[in-house]
This record gives sequence, structure tokens and C-alpha cells, in this order.
Amino acid sequence: MDNKAIVDVLKAVGSGKLTVDQAVARLSVCYESLGFANLDIGRGLRTGISEVLFCQGKTRDQVVSISKSILKRNRRLLATRADAETFKAVRKSIPKAEYKEAARVIVVNPHPRRVRRRIAVLSAGTSDIPVAEEAAETAQFLGNRVDRVYDVGVAGIHRLFGHLDLLKKANVIVVVAGMEGALASVVGGLVGGPIIGVPTSVGYGASFGGVASLLTMLNSCAPGVTVVNIDNGFGAGVAASLINAKRT
Amino acid sequence: MDNKAIVDVLKAVGSGKLTVDQAVARLSVCYESLGFANLDIGRGLRTGISEVLFCQGKTRDQVVSISKSILKRNRRLLATRADAETFKAVRKSIPKAEYKEAARVIVVNPHPRRVRRRIAVLSAGTSDIPVAEEAAETAQFLGNRVDRVYDVGVAGIHRLFGHLDLLKKANVIVVVAGMEGALASVVGGLVGGPIIGVPTSVGYGASFGGVASLLTMLNSCAPGVTVVNIDNGFGAGVAASLINAKRT
Amino acid sequence: MDNKAIVDVLKAVGSGKLTVDQAVARLSVCYESLGFANLDIGRGLRTGISEVLFCQGKTRDQVVSISKSILKRNRRLLATRADAETFKAVRKSIPKAEYKEAARVIVVNPHPRRVRRRIAVLSAGTSDIPVAEEAAETAQFLGNRVDRVYDVGVAGIHRLFGHLDLLKKANVIVVVAGMEGALASVVGGLVGGPIIGVPTSVGYGASFGGVASLLTMLNSCAPGVTVVNIDNGFGAGVAASLINAKRT
Amino acid sequence: MDNKAIVDVLKAVGSGKLTVDQAVARLSVCYESLGFANLDIGRGLRTGISEVLFCQGKTRDQVVSISKSILKRNRRLLATRADAETFKAVRKSIPKAEYKEAARVIVVNPHPRRVRRRIAVLSAGTSDIPVAEEAAETAQFLGNRVDRVYDVGVAGIHRLFGHLDLLKKANVIVVVAGMEGALASVVGGLVGGPIIGVPTSVGYGASFGGVASLLTMLNSCAPGVTVVNIDNGFGAGVAASLINAKRT
Amino acid sequence: MDNKAIVDVLKAVGSGKLTVDQAVARLSVCYESLGFANLDIGRGLRTGISEVLFCQGKTRDQVVSISKSILKRNRRLLATRADAETFKAVRKSIPKAEYKEAARVIVVNPHPRRVRRRIAVLSAGTSDIPVAEEAAETAQFLGNRVDRVYDVGVAGIHRLFGHLDLLKKANVIVVVAGMEGALASVVGGLVGGPIIGVPTSVGYGASFGGVASLLTMLNSCAPGVTVVNIDNGFGAGVAASLINAKRT
Amino acid sequence: MDNKAIVDVLKAVGSGKLTVDQAVARLSVCYESLGFANLDIGRGLRTGISEVLFCQGKTRDQVVSISKSILKRNRRLLATRADAETFKAVRKSIPKAEYKEAARVIVVNPHPRRVRRRIAVLSAGTSDIPVAEEAAETAQFLGNRVDRVYDVGVAGIHRLFGHLDLLKKANVIVVVAGMEGALASVVGGLVGGPIIGVPTSVGYGASFGGVASLLTMLNSCAPGVTVVNIDNGFGAGVAASLINAKRT
Amino acid sequence: MDNKAIVDVLKAVGSGKLTVDQAVARLSVCYESLGFANLDIGRGLRTGISEVLFCQGKTRDQVVSISKSILKRNRRLLATRADAETFKAVRKSIPKAEYKEAARVIVVNPHPRRVRRRIAVLSAGTSDIPVAEEAAETAQFLGNRVDRVYDVGVAGIHRLFGHLDLLKKANVIVVVAGMEGALASVVGGLVGGPIIGVPTSVGYGASFGGVASLLTMLNSCAPGVTVVNIDNGFGAGVAASLINAKRT
Amino acid sequence: MDNKAIVDVLKAVGSGKLTVDQAVARLSVCYESLGFANLDIGRGLRTGISEVLFCQGKTRDQVVSISKSILKRNRRLLATRADAETFKAVRKSIPKAEYKEAARVIVVNPHPRRVRRRIAVLSAGTSDIPVAEEAAETAQFLGNRVDRVYDVGVAGIHRLFGHLDLLKKANVIVVVAGMEGALASVVGGLVGGPIIGVPTSVGYGASFGGVASLLTMLNSCAPGVTVVNIDNGFGAGVAASLINAKRT
Repeated sequence: MDNKAIVDVLKAVGSGKLTVDQAVARLSVCYESLGFANLDIGRGLRTGISEVLFCQGKTRDQVVSISKSILKRNRRLLATRADAETFKAVRKSIPKAEYKEAARVIVVNPHPRRVRRRIAVLSAGTSDIPVAEEAAETAQFLGNRVDRVYDVGVAGIHRLFGHLDLLKKANVIVVVAGMEGALASVVGGLVGGPIIGVPTSVGYGASFGGVASLLTMLNSCAPGVTVVNIDNGFGAGVAASLINAKRT
Repeated sequence: MDNKAIVDVLKAVGSGKLTVDQAVARLSVCYESLGFANLDIGRGLRTGISEVLFCQGKTRDQVVSISKSILKRNRRLLATRADAETFKAVRKSIPKAEYKEAARVIVVNPHPRRVRRRIAVLSAGTSDIPVAEEAAETAQFLGNRVDRVYDVGVAGIHRLFGHLDLLKKANVIVVVAGMEGALASVVGGLVGGPIIGVPTSVGYGASFGGVASLLTMLNSCAPGVTVVNIDNGFGAGVAASLINAKRT
Repeated sequence: MDNKAIVDVLKAVGSGKLTVDQAVARLSVCYESLGFANLDIGRGLRTGISEVLFCQGKTRDQVVSISKSILKRNRRLLATRADAETFKAVRKSIPKAEYKEAARVIVVNPHPRRVRRRIAVLSAGTSDIPVAEEAAETAQFLGNRVDRVYDVGVAGIHRLFGHLDLLKKANVIVVVAGMEGALASVVGGLVGGPIIGVPTSVGYGASFGGVASLLTMLNSCAPGVTVVNIDNGFGAGVAASLINAKRT
Repeated sequence: MDNKAIVDVLKAVGSGKLTVDQAVARLSVCYESLGFANLDIGRGLRTGISEVLFCQGKTRDQVVSISKSILKRNRRLLATRADAETFKAVRKSIPKAEYKEAARVIVVNPHPRRVRRRIAVLSAGTSDIPVAEEAAETAQFLGNRVDRVYDVGVAGIHRLFGHLDLLKKANVIVVVAGMEGALASVVGGLVGGPIIGVPTSVGYGASFGGVASLLTMLNSCAPGVTVVNIDNGFGAGVAASLINAKRT
Repeated sequence: MDNKAIVDVLKAVGSGKLTVDQAVARLSVCYESLGFANLDIGRGLRTGISEVLFCQGKTRDQVVSISKSILKRNRRLLATRADAETFKAVRKSIPKAEYKEAARVIVVNPHPRRVRRRIAVLSAGTSDIPVAEEAAETAQFLGNRVDRVYDVGVAGIHRLFGHLDLLKKANVIVVVAGMEGALASVVGGLVGGPIIGVPTSVGYGASFGGVASLLTMLNSCAPGVTVVNIDNGFGAGVAASLINAKRT
Repeated sequence: MDNKAIVDVLKAVGSGKLTVDQAVARLSVCYESLGFANLDIGRGLRTGISEVLFCQGKTRDQVVSISKSILKRNRRLLATRADAETFKAVRKSIPKAEYKEAARVIVVNPHPRRVRRRIAVLSAGTSDIPVAEEAAETAQFLGNRVDRVYDVGVAGIHRLFGHLDLLKKANVIVVVAGMEGALASVVGGLVGGPIIGVPTSVGYGASFGGVASLLTMLNSCAPGVTVVNIDNGFGAGVAASLINAKRT
Repeated sequence: MDNKAIVDVLKAVGSGKLTVDQAVARLSVCYESLGFANLDIGRGLRTGISEVLFCQGKTRDQVVSISKSILKRNRRLLATRADAETFKAVRKSIPKAEYKEAARVIVVNPHPRRVRRRIAVLSAGTSDIPVAEEAAETAQFLGNRVDRVYDVGVAGIHRLFGHLDLLKKANVIVVVAGMEGALASVVGGLVGGPIIGVPTSVGYGASFGGVASLLTMLNSCAPGVTVVNIDNGFGAGVAASLINAKRT
Repeated sequence: MDNKAIVDVLKAVGSGKLTVDQAVARLSVCYESLGFANLDIGRGLRTGISEVLFCQGKTRDQVVSISKSILKRNRRLLATRADAETFKAVRKSIPKAEYKEAARVIVVNPHPRRVRRRIAVLSAGTSDIPVAEEAAETAQFLGNRVDRVYDVGVAGIHRLFGHLDLLKKANVIVVVAGMEGALASVVGGLVGGPIIGVPTSVGYGASFGGVASLLTMLNSCAPGVTVVNIDNGFGAGVAASLINAKRT
């Protein structure tokens, strides 16, 4: 039942129960101002994905403060790009918070949703795992079942072939790869279904912080591959979840 | 029943009906050599999307020759980036071929598949329409129902708001935009579901042939937006179709 | 009286004269669909600048069709980036249309608005004049008085000094320059008031199609310089007009 | 009364009261040499904006020394990009100096000028606030009234709609945004008046330190948007003030 | 017997048969001046590869003139990047010249050298064939046996697997690929031996004229892959020949 | 006696013979307005190099008109980047004009100045000659003696060694090179004296229109190499002449 | 006898000794999973170069763990990009490990293979030595004889000429150079045989972290030069070894 | 008397006093091997500028060791990009070494050469001074008289006009500028004589580490401006000295 809260306000305007000014006020309430931030309370209603806290570039105090505000209205919290020190600060205020170190995310998720159909998350190398874990943890937080297949890059492509069955069972495949990022194309040539490429900044020299892998994935000769920003495991997890979500 | 042909060959090896060498020969047959091209006959089996003919950079003779080879084995043909002259050449050999001028695609599709759930294709401006049409025609060729919403860019965002219901009904939304490409983020902030951004080369100066729009979409603050190559309407149509495909 | 039409619709919703659905319908009417384009009828109401027709990348038929639609509702028309052939096609349908060749714009403006305060448009070189003229004609169309000062680049900076009085009289100064684009900084160091830099693609080699000039202007050590896209004389003319507009 | 001092010197030359050499000497006095810096004493006369101290890249001793020199001639001081340690050093010599931590500026402003018409400063996200504050504090220092509207990016565009009235009251709008920077276009499509975009370096991966946002703003489909350098809150504050200044 | 001519001159200096000035004169003779070009007669002596004529950017008259000069001293000629019109001009003066249209090279090679060990030249797609042919023809001209394997890109990687035996027999493998250029890494992960990657400008949008493929190959996770300039089939052919040359 | 005209005007102001307004008028006369261009009459006085006409991007009529204006005041004319058709148009009005085809310059120079000391102009390849000729003709027009040494790139470095004496005699060396542009560094390591590098756009693929050569020259490990814009033979000729000029 | 293990498995399938599923299982065993990494046990079989450990971006614990796993199956270990602290950690578990500090590699190599033919490794400057040493140590680990020639850049090209005999004796030449990277072209013009260029990130300003040198080498006018990634001494060492390997 | 040592060796070969092998040995001696570096003893002979020590990227021990080797053969030493700690290490071995802190250079120069004609070194801002000082100290070390004119950027161009006489007296002008780098063009338009632009990395955002200033200078509309690498004060000092050197 999408957007119900917003629709209710609009209907109340139409029925005369609210004046235009009152309606604007109500809609304004849909975000909560913390002074330095406007929590987008309505995002879950509108898009199916509640607001997630991106910790990078925020102070520890800001992270704690926003986390508590989110938990006032939701029972669940996902905070990405959190270092261990930030987690320590959060845990003081929110003892039930968990830290997924490999993914650098903080999670409060007391009643994980029922497992839905499968998302496969692949990484080309060992160094790509943090980004892959961010994607995997995000997708799990959003209620998906995730299969991880790591370190199966094209330098030893037979490592991938051992997992073909698992790939075919997936509704969506997230491919995380730095350096030349060729894995997304190869997977796209082998199996059907939507593939989301996540270029990583792993590499050196002419990888240009992930640009090489990004361009590789954008130019993939295997149609059906779409791409998110460099190192954006979170975005890939959300997109995969949205694709997976409506299947029943 | 995915990949059945390939699996049969492997099973025949296992049961001794085929030697290793014979199996390799069989699998080799899965593409047809035209000298200058190896038609990937098995692609439909593997990925659900049969080989599509990309005309740009090929001679008219090559396009005609490949088209005929495809139609020898399939009853259907999709050829993208085809100009009017190329179509004329194709039509001589393949009278039933149709030309979708706005999309620059050639189609042979005698028995269009039954309509499935909806894909919405949006364009920010009038000049983005050819790319949007390539996406829309590709998705239709692959059996999808497509709603087109054109010229609804953020310079007049109320034009978009008039179509919110339609957007909410879509399983997937393809957003085609040049210049600053902000439409994908705005749509991603308004509605749920997977969104595929297609940056176009429409613009001038610091649009750098579509780079500005590409970067905008990759950096979208609305999670769930994935991106394909600049002007790659075809890729967006395939990805949208793969996402839409399994829903029943 | 800004945005009155839109406000009226909203008020009618509040007073029960319109249902939510009817209101959506009304607001939808604020643009006119031509199939390939949605004319943003409401833009003048919202932003003070009515929709202007950007001809580049549109067919002549599209330009003629949009021009006629605009003139159905307005008495005035500005079409930019129009070549001489396009003008010929437009004039057949719209005999009163004028062509400003140096600026490559088509104008219908039967009752030019009263002259307001002054905008100065400078060009560094002779080759920058088309972009400068686009800015100047746009500003004039929008009711401003424009002083042109051309070919006063820093290779012979005394040419600029002869015009200092005129620069000081201007409310806004538009500086159009290619190659190294240093003129904007120099002017910004000499006189007060807002300065809008327009980098042009004039140059060769390491000018990279206007990038050198763009970077120069963005890095200007003279505060108060703002910048528009490469070759975007139209945007500069609009911005200058908006700045100039409210002064009385 | 602009540029009076310089004009007086020139007139004195014309009337024979000063020789050419004496006049050159006088004009030379218009900056004060500190050895490592030439304070541009005449800048306020020429451009209406007195010299402001950019602390980044200068030693603390240089900042203190220049600050004292400025205050010898002016009663007011604005020093930007100052960290807390630099402020401590300055306060020792200049006890009345204040530190605006969020904006990273040092201010001495004993008699703030009377409030003029309004400038609105918007930020897309929380991380963009330091740059937004630099713009806001600069504009306030220059005598303007500033309304701040923070964290209203396009991922939740309804947060912006709650502030439309405030935006319409502004003479100038400064839009500060990192990542994809789409907010400037959206604002430009909604309201009239000059808009100054400030791209920020907030983001990661393909944001390329602010390039993505910069390109978005330069390619804005909403005419009237002009742009300053990445993270250049100071420049935006000055430009907004110059636009706002002459309105009475 | 490398460099013998040059060594002889130096020895003659040492033995007093030549003065320093005379020796300089002799060495100067090692190139022949045509006014606009200095034919490097000594290159074959020094590097094992005689001077080859790069036609692009030269007039037809220059190509004919240089071709004749080369044939005055050699019995063999290789001219690359030659269009059909240039060949017509050359054939008038040099009737025995042949034109390899697919490779765009002109060849005079009356007594092809004995076939040496094998070089495999792979192309990812049909559009990459001209560059692949330039590599193949160059290698053949230099006396190598060349196996061509075309249109075996990673979108249908099984097409490659049918040729594994041939790849294993090759002393050197040249991989020619545009778009995302992943084929070089995949081949490098499958077989041993030196691999030379040739990125091509085939592609569009974010392929940036071959940059995407170039970066992919430079960042290959399969060690042993080296790379030449975009579209440089000639350079790859020479490098492959030099590697192949010394094996006996 | 530099800048005498300007100084005279300033002195006249000081002595009361001219009012400030009259002086401004006089100085304004130092350029001649053609409407679309302000001829910088004073440039020769100020910098020793009279204004030169850059034809690229100007219409033939503009070139003819400016040429005639220059010749009204000077007896000499240099017009660069002129194609053959432009020359035909110029010659109709100015019969004594000569066309240096290889350099693409038009010259009127009835009394060539006396030959001064030597400038050497080197080109790496045959395709770099047009840029080298532009440098050479410019330097000759400005009264210098020029030695040309063409097609001596590092692929056959012995071709350079045959000319070492000539290089050592030069007061300035201009090195024109495309592709990898290594010649400037090599020359800079071999001989003393100022060296001006001119990167050219000769090359393909990763030469990026001359960027590769530009970067090579900027990063030269041989100190003393300075660089001008890509293909800027004219600028190199002027710089070389300025260096050569004062030697007696 | 290449790929024997894999072939055996395939033959066993053909002969019925293994089912298809069993064969897949066997092939899967060809890598060993450490959880965070899949050691590619089969790489040596397939490509002749066993898996090498790239330490950068891995934790010390990961390096130690992978090192021990490699040594369980091999008697030899090469770990590149290892700092001194990492080596200390490795030595605790693997006392026989050696650290080549200049090359930043850890080596276990109890029975160095017999010396084969020569590879020459050149560096242009002193700062390029770490990359050159990585190439040299890699090649030695793989059983090659390596001659080092350091600090022979083109600023003093005579330093190179003293080593020409050594260069001519080499089967392959690796040229390591930062800044403008011209050394590769010069060597390529002087001697025959394959040349592998390794651009380094040595330099500043417009060297852009090695891009200048990379472009120089890619655009080399001396055919036969191939290139690896910036600072990729390891890759150059492997490629040189593969070229050198088959000569007997 | 240029290159005498090298010429002597060659003559000795010609006269039979040296065999070819002996001559090669002699020439090899012209550099001194320190293992990690080959001091180019002959550079002063060849190019007039002895080898200078670039400290950046070298260890302190390497700097000390090379410094001592240089002083074994020369009485003078210039070491650039040296930090204070490096100087302390050098002074222990070389007590007479001086440290020019502003320029970050170490100097040993017991008998400064006689003062020659003047070089002017300008900086646009205070932050550009370290690069300007590097240029100035280098030029002084090489025997030139240097006038410094700092903080005269175009934001307050009258600060420059007070120094016009000094600029006109200079044989060469070095212009050091970051941010938009416009000063070089302005100076080039005002005075004659060679001008060397040194872009600096001073700036932020779209200055891209000096690229903006570099492009500005390369595209200078004032002919006669040549450019060196970003922050390359040393190179500018050498080039200015070479230009100044031959004037008597």
C-alpha cells in the first residue's frame, strides 16, 4: 500500500478537512529536522527503502544522533561506511546495534524479514570483498537471501564455472570487481537474468581509482549489465533488492 | 528450460555417447561462422536474449548477410542502430522487415509475444527520444508492454508529476536523459522499483558527449538507480526486460 | 504576481471546488503535448522566463511546429541555435519572424518591452562574437538594454581600459572568452557588480573545446565571477536578465 | 561613490597637482607590501568587496600578520578556510575575532551593516553544510540577510517543497550540492530569480572530487543557473551579495 | 649479423681509414633525404625491422615517392593505413603492389620468407577485424605464420573455447578488442605464453574512442599481457614478430 | 624605444596638454575598430611583435578586411592558418601577398629585415612539417635566419646526430613533434641553449590529439625545455624570435 | 606437458570413470578456498606462471595465511608489494623467507631454476629503481638471468650508449621510466628484440601519476614496444619471462 | 668551448691514440656510477647546465651521497625540493651547505659568478612564492641577477602596473601563477621579450592540481609565452638562464 500517508493528506485537503496551509504543514512533518539533517521519514512509503545512514563525512556525534532519531520511528537501522570507532560510539547509545566488520555497516534488525528469493553476490578478488559485503549485508537487511561467491575473477575463470548452478538459481547477480572489471561481462555472457556491476577502486596506476573497471562494465558487450558508482556496494544491494522484491 | 542443448551435449559425453573431441565439435557448432562473424546461436539458450544485430560499424552487405543467417534459425530479428539506407538494403532480401524510424531499429517479429507487465520509458527532452525509442522498441520486441512518457525533464518537473500513477504501475522504469541527467535521481526519489538510467549524448560544451549525464546518474543520491552506457537504449531495454521477465 | 495559475488550482482543491483528480488534470494542462514535446506553458509563471526553443538537434519540422505552438499562447518567440535554413522554414509559417544572423537566433517580438537598466556584453576576440551575440540578443528579447564591447581580450588590455566607464554603468557584465579566458578575471578585478563568464570553444589544441577557458573562469581569483556552460550565450543572457530584472 | 580615491589621483594628474611619477607612486600605495604579500587596499574601492583573507596554504604566522594589517585600515575582517588552530593564533593578537566553526571562517565585524534583502542558501545534504555556511557567513558579513535551508536534496524532494515560499522571497538563491548536484536544476525549474550553484566535493568514486556535481550544474536545463568553483562557498557568497547589493 | 654496416664505419675510424668527419658523413648516408622525409635506411640493420610506411596524414604523392625510394634499396614494401585511392596511385608506379583491403595495407613481397612458428591473432568482434588484419598482415610480411580467430568475444565465451588447441600452439597471441576489451584477460587466464593486447576504437559513448578497452588491458589481472596503442595493429604485428623471431 | 606613443600620451596628461578625457580618447585610438574586431595597433610598440592575423574561425571577408586594415598602417602582414581558398580571396585585394603553402601562412613582406643569428627548427616526422613550417616562416617574417632539420625523430636517432653541428650553432631550437614527442628531451640532453617544444596533433589513439606529446614535453627530464600549445607553430616562432632578438 | 591435470579429468569423463558432476567437483578442487580467497592452484598448469601473492590491500594476517597455503603445495613463493612490517610477520611463520627490500618482494626459492637466456632491465632514473627491481626479481624468481642497467635516461643519453653491447645480448628488454618516459622509444630505435615499457608514477605536476610516461610509451614511434600498467614491474617481469621462456 | 672533453676522445680515436673499445670506455667514464645513480658528469659540457640534484623521492642517505659525489668534481652544488630534515643531514657532511628555505633548495656556491643581465620573477599570489623562489634561486645559482615581484595577480592588476619599468628592464620574465594563471597572458600583452609561465598547484576544486593554470598559459593569446611543468620553478630558472646567458 504505497504512499498511503501522503495520499491521506492529499485526500484530507480534497475533503476540506485540511486547508492548503495545514496540508503543507503535514507534509512538512514527513521529515524530521535535526538542525543539520532532515530525516526523510517518508522515503520508505514512497520508494520501499527507508532512509539509510551514510556515515562517511559525518561526525560520530551526528551518526549517533541520526541513528537514535531513525530508531525512534523505525525498529530497524542500517548505517553504512561506519568504522569501528563509530560503531563503539553508537553501541553506547544503542546496545543492540551489531557491527558487520567486513561490510563496515552497523545493523539493528530485531526481526529479520522472511527470506525471499536469492541474490548472488560475486567478487573478482579478495580485495573487493568489503564492497561485496556491503552489497550483501544491505540486501540481507532488506529481507533477501544472499549467496556469496568470492575471488572468482577471470585470471582463473574455472573458479567461476564451479558455481554456475548457484548463479543460475539467482534472481539477480551482483558482480563486484576492481582492476579491469571483466568479470561482469563474462558472467553476463554465461547466464541470464539481471546483472548489476559494481566497479571497485581496487587497483593501481591506470585503474585511476576504479575508472578502468567502471568503463569496462559500462561498455560490456553482454547486454543486461547495469552499473552503479565505484565502490557503491550499498546501491547495488538496494537495486538488487528492488528487482528481487516484487517476485512472489 | 535453460541451456538444455549444452547440457545434453555434456551428458552425452558423460554417458559415453560422445567422445571429448566429438563434444567439442558439437559445442563449436553452437555458433555459425560467416567468415567475418561467429553468430552466437547459443546466446538465447544461455541468457534468455538471442543475439541482436548491432549495425553501426558494419557494412550494409554484412548487415544483410547476418540478418539472413539469424532468420535461418530464428523467426525473429532485431537490428539496432540501422539507418534508412541500411533498412532499404535489408528489405530487398527480407520483405517482411519493418523499420522503426524513431528508434533506428529493424524488426522482424511475426508473432509478438503476449504482453507482460509494464515497463515505463521516460525521456527528459525531445532530443533524447531516439535513444528512448531504442529502449522501448527493444523491450517490446522482447515481449514487454511499454509506456512512453517523453519530455518531462526537471526544468518543468510538474510535467512529470502528471504521470506519477503510470510510474507507480511500472515494474521497471527506464529514464533517458542528456544534458545534466537529473531526471533519474528525481524519479528515484519519488517512486520505488528498479530504475535504469540511460545518459545520452544530447548537450554541448561541458556535457562532453554525455559524460555529464553519465556522472550525474552514477552519483545519484537516490539508491536503486543503475546505469548503462551513454546512448545505450538497447542495453536498457534488455536489462528492463530481464528484470520484468520472471514476474508472473 | 507569480505562479498565480498554479496557486489558483491548489486553492480550488482546498475549497472543494476541485477534487484531487481534477486538480491533477488541471495542472497537467499546464504543458501542451505535441507528441514529441511537452511545451512547458507554466514556465513563465514559475520562473519569469517563458520557454525558449533550442533548435540544435531538432528537425526543421519540429522547430516550425513548436514555434507555432508557442505563438498560439504567447505573442513572442525566441529560438536559439537556428541556422539560416531553419529560419527559412520558420518564416514560411511565421512571416513576421526575424533572423539575427550573428547570434543565430529567430525572434518574434512585436512589442519590445521598455528598456531597463544596462547589461554589458564583452567578447575577448572576434571569433567569440556569435556566442556574445546570443547572450546580447537573449537579454534584449527579455527587455534589457545591452551594451556590446567586442574584441577587448588581454593580449591588448588597453582596448578594455577605454571602456571602463561603460563597464561601471552596467548592472551586470557578461564576459565571453575562448582560448585562455583570462578576461573575466581581469574585469572582475577592475570593476564591481556581478560578472557572468561564458567560456567559448574558440581555440585549438589544449583548449580542449573550451575546457581551458571554463577552468580559468571557475578558478578566477576575482570573487564575484560566476560561470555558465561553454558557448552558452543564451544561459548567460537569461541569468543577466534575472539579475537585472528586479532592480527599480 | 565608487572608485573615488583612484579617480582623485587621476584628476590630480590632469590638473597638474601630481606629476606622472607622483601619481604612479600614489597608486602604488594602494597596496601595502608585507614582503610575502601585497594587500590590495584598493579592492573595496574598485569592486565593492574588500580584500578577504584565504587562509588555506598560508602559515599561521602569515594569517596573523595579514589579519593585523587588514585591521589597521579596516574595522572589519573576513578570513576563510581557517581551521581551529589558526583561529587560536589569531585570537591571541585580535581578541575580538570570532570563529564560525561550521563555516570555518574568522570574523571581525563590530558594527554589522543594516540587513538588506534576502539571500537563500540551500544545501542538498548534511555533508554540504560547511560549504553552505561559508557562503552564508560571507553574505552576512557583506551585510545581507540570509535564510538557510539545509538537507533538501532530490532524493526526498518534498523536503524542498515545504520551503517554496521562502525561496520565492529570496532575491538570489545559492544552491550547494555534492554527489550528482541535481538540486540546482530542480530549484531553477521551480522558481525565478538568479541561482548560483556551488558544487561540492562531497561524494566518492565517480564524483571525482566534485566534478560530477560541477558538470551537472554547468549543463543545467534550467536557464539562469550560474556556477562557481567546487567548494567555493566564499565566491558564491560574494556573487550573491553583489547581485543583492544594488536593490533598494 | 646485426649492425654490421655501422660497426664497419666505426672500425674504419679506429683504424685510421676514415677521419672523424668522413665517418660522420658515412653515417649520415644511412638515411636518404627526400626533402620532406629522411628514410631510415639503417633501421633494418639496427632493429631487425625495416622502415615501414605509415600512409595516414601523408599525401598520395608523398606515399608514392617514399614507396619508390624504399623499393630502390629493398625488394619489399609494407605501407599501412592506406585507403583504396592511395593504392590506385601506388599501383600506377609499382604494378606489382598488392592491396590487402581488410587490413588497409599495401604489400610488395616477391619472395615471402620461410614460414616460422605460429602467431595467433584473435578479434573480439567483427568490427575489430580491420585492426586484427593489420596485425596479421604485418606479421606475415615479416615472415611469420599467422592463425586468425575472429569474433570470439566474451559475450559468448564458448566460441573461444573451441579454439583452445590453436591458442596453445601459438608462440604469441595477439588479442584485438574494442568496447570493454575483456578478451585479453580471459585469454591470459586460460593459456600461457606472451599475449599482446590491441585495444580498438570500436564502441560508443563511454568507450571514449578505445580508452575503455585500453584501460581494461592495462589493468589485466592476468599477468603476461602487454599492450600497444589503440588501433595499432601494425605495432602488435611487429612486436609479435620480434618475440617469435628468435625461436628456433 | 619601447612604448613611446603610450608614454607620450601619459606625459601630455602630466603636463596639462591633454585632459584626462582627451588622453583616454588618444589611447583608445591605439586600436582601430572594424566593428567585429579591434586591431591592436599598439601591440608592436608594447611587445615588439605587431598584431598577426589568425585566420582559423574567421570568414574570408573578415580576413580580407582585417588584412587591408593592417596594411594601411604597416607595410608587412602575416596571416596564419590560412587555407588556399582564403589566400585566393586575399590576393584579389592584395596582389603582392604570397602564400607559403607548407606553412599555411600568407605573407606580405616587401623589405625582409636583415638576417640575424640562427634559429633551428626540427621536426620529428614528415607529418609534423606543416607546424614546423609555421614556426619557421613566422621566425623568418620576424627577421630571423632559420635552419630546418626535418624527420629526425628518435625511432632513428642517428638521423639527428648528423646535424649536431647545426644544432650547436643555433641560438634557439624549436622542436616540433607529435606521437610521443620524445625528441625535445633528447635534444635537450645533447645540446645547450633554449629549446621550445611544439607538440603536434599527429598521431592516433592514445595520442589524444597531441596530449601525449604535450605531456612528454612538459615532463622533460632535460631542463631548459619550454612548451607551447599543441600545433602552435606560430607561438613557437614568436617566442624563438623574442629570444633571438636581443643578441648582438 | 601443459594442462595435464585438467585434461586427465576431462578424459576420465570421456571414459566414464567420472560422471559430469564428479568432474565438476574435481575441477572445483583446482582452487583452494581460504574463505576470503580462492587460491588458483591450476594457474601454473594453465599459464606456466604459478599464482603470485599481491600484498597491497591485504592485511598481514591474510598475507601470512595465503603464503602458508601456497607453500603447502609449492616449494616456492613470490609475494609482491610487501612492506618491511609484512615481511616480519611472514618470517615468523616461514623462517626461510627472504626480503628483497629494493623490490619490496618476499621470496621463498630453495632451488633456483637453472639460468636461462638474458633479460635486460633498464631504469631511466634513480627513483624508478623500486619498480625496476620488482621486474628484475620477478624475472629471476621465474628462472631468468637478469642484467640491470640503471639511471640511463635521455637527459644524458651517452650513459645508455655505454651499455649497447649488453642490450644487444638481451632476448627481451624491460624499460622502466617515469616523467616523460622517452627512454623506451630511444631504446626501441637503437636495438632489435622485444621491448616492454613500464611507466612509473615518478614525477610531479603534469606527469599525473605516471600518465605522461604511459602515453609516451603507448605512442612510441619505435615499433615493437609494448606496455604494461603504471608501476607494474611484476607484470613486466612475467611478460619478459614468458617471452624468454621457450627459447632453448 | 663546448663539449671539448667528448670531442677530444673522438679525435683520439681518429688519430689512432685510442681504439674504439678504449674510446667507449672513456666516454663511459663521463658518468660516475654510485650503484643507484649514474652522475652525468658530462652534462655541463654538453648543455651548459651541470647536473642538479632533485631530492624529492630520494632517501636522505641518497641525497647526501650524491651531493658529496657532485662536490668531488665541482665546487658548486644545487639540490632542489629539499626539506629541512634533508638539509640537516646534508649539513653534517657538507658544513658549508646553505638552505634557502623559501625555495626549498640546498646551495653550495663559494664563488658566485659575476652578475649578468636581469631576469624578473613574478608571482601571482603569496602561495605561489615557494615555486617562484625555486626559479629565482636556480637562476641566481646559474649566475643571473634576479628581480622578484610577488603577489601581483590580476585580481588587483594595478599592483602589477607599479612594476612595469622593472619588467621592461628584464631580458626574460618568469611568471609563476596558480588558480586561473591569467597573469602570464596579461604580462605578455603588456611587455616584450620572452616570458616563461610556471603554473602552480595552488588552488582547489576545478584547479585540478594546477591543470587550470597550465591550460590557461598554454592557450595564452599573447604570443611569446612558453610554459614549463606545474610547480617546475627549477626548470623555469634554467630556461631563463639559458636565454639570458648568451647576451653580452
